[in-house]
Amino acid sequence: MPELRVHNLTISLDGYAAGPGQSTHDPMGAGGERLHEWALRTRAGQEQFFGRCGGEDGIDDALWRRGDEGIGATIMGRNMFGPVRGPWPDESWTGWWGDEPPYHHPVFVLTHHARPPLAMEGGTVFHFVTDGIEAALERAFDAAGGDDVRLGGGPATVQAYLRAGLVDELHVAITPILLGGGERLFDGIGPGLGYECVELVTSPSVVHARFRKVAPSGPPITIP
Amino acid sequence: MPELRVHNLTISLDGYAAGPGQSTHDPMGAGGERLHEWALRTRAGQEQFFGRCGGEDGIDDALWRRGDEGIGATIMGRNMFGPVRGPWPDESWTGWWGDEPPYHHPVFVLTHHARPPLAMEGGTVFHFVTDGIEAALERAFDAAGGDDVRLGGGPATVQAYLRAGLVDELHVAITPILLGGGERLFDGIGPGLGYECVELVTSPSVVHARFRKVAPSGPPITIP
Repeated sequence: MPELRVHNLTISLDGYAAGPGQSTHDPMGAGGERLHEWALRTRAGQEQFFGRCGGEDGIDDALWRRGDEGIGATIMGRNMFGPVRGPWPDESWTGWWGDEPPYHHPVFVLTHHARPPLAMEGGTVFHFVTDGIEAALERAFDAAGGDDVRLGGGPATVQAYLRAGLVDELHVAITPILLGGGERLFDGIGPGLGYECVELVTSPSVVHARFRKVAPSGPPITIP
Repeated sequence: MPELRVHNLTISLDGYAAGPGQSTHDPMGAGGERLHEWALRTRAGQEQFFGRCGGEDGIDDALWRRGDEGIGATIMGRNMFGPVRGPWPDESWTGWWGDEPPYHHPVFVLTHHARPPLAMEGGTVFHFVTDGIEAALERAFDAAGGDDVRLGGGPATVQAYLRAGLVDELHVAITPILLGGGERLFDGIGPGLGYECVELVTSPSVVHARFRKVAPSGPPITIP
């Protein structure tokens, strides 16, 4: 059965997915860009973010790539799509990613404010969903045509899907830095949700923990 | 120069060093005992906690043992010494560890309530320090006679020493479980304190991150 998967969601050792003082001008917060240095260093990251060859092979690269494998649609929160808040003033904002976003498939953006779909170059179409996370998930599964759906972020969106028990797989990367404040990924995400760590590996610079949902009311999470 | 070191301080993936609902009857909080399963499984843990041979060798065992190497005195918070709060009603509480605690050296217990020193079997002497963390550290360094001092816990005590910039080395173990609530280790411990991750390794069940203090107002923490 197709699954809802989260990949490469990076947090600091003190648990923050974004640093303190987030704003439209500083969407990652103070120090937040350091969370993502590991991804930029990978071969896949060099290709994807800078369009160049080079970069590091290894665990980090393999896991970064895994986030795109078998994915037919993406869901994201509105803040991940852009800095605009409230009703859309116009349709000029088309995402952070330029004319050809790296999705190449339908992307469902959670928002309270309707907007017509937005077709970009390379196959990415942004759909704006105003009727909640379940509706977005249903539409994404339909659009993915049997493939999995990737849940992009930000942290609040991932939390909403985790609390609703809708995430099948959660891959968290932990960079060993302290941000001291910001937006936490795990806030009130308790053991009752039934996520179990099924893989724990580290490169020299980042830890990868992969969780699977075992059962909505399953046994307590145990160390593998 | 002798150092102040923290070892084997274990937190969950959501950052808790103890689970929710801590009480005198449940000092680790709900699920908190699962944080320490990794240590109990090691060869050193089997010896230390159950007095028996067996258990697992490997990274976890080596790092657990490292916590005792070159240590001449220990500092701990009162809650780690016992469940008694407020003035000591009498001197009957002598710690969680029976007649022969596993320290075998002077232990300085931070408290607001004076009490005479308490000599146990095997060389452990508990000293009750009422004049603050710096005073306790000074006494511990004196008592250690040139060896390092270990800072035991709990989390609030470690936080106090981190904020004061007095910890030289911090080894955190992360178990990939979610506790959903409890007592966080890293709360307001920001990058300005100058701790840098110098080692990141994982066993199949627990991640070890070792931090060193680089400078009180040093460069930003960087991924090694």
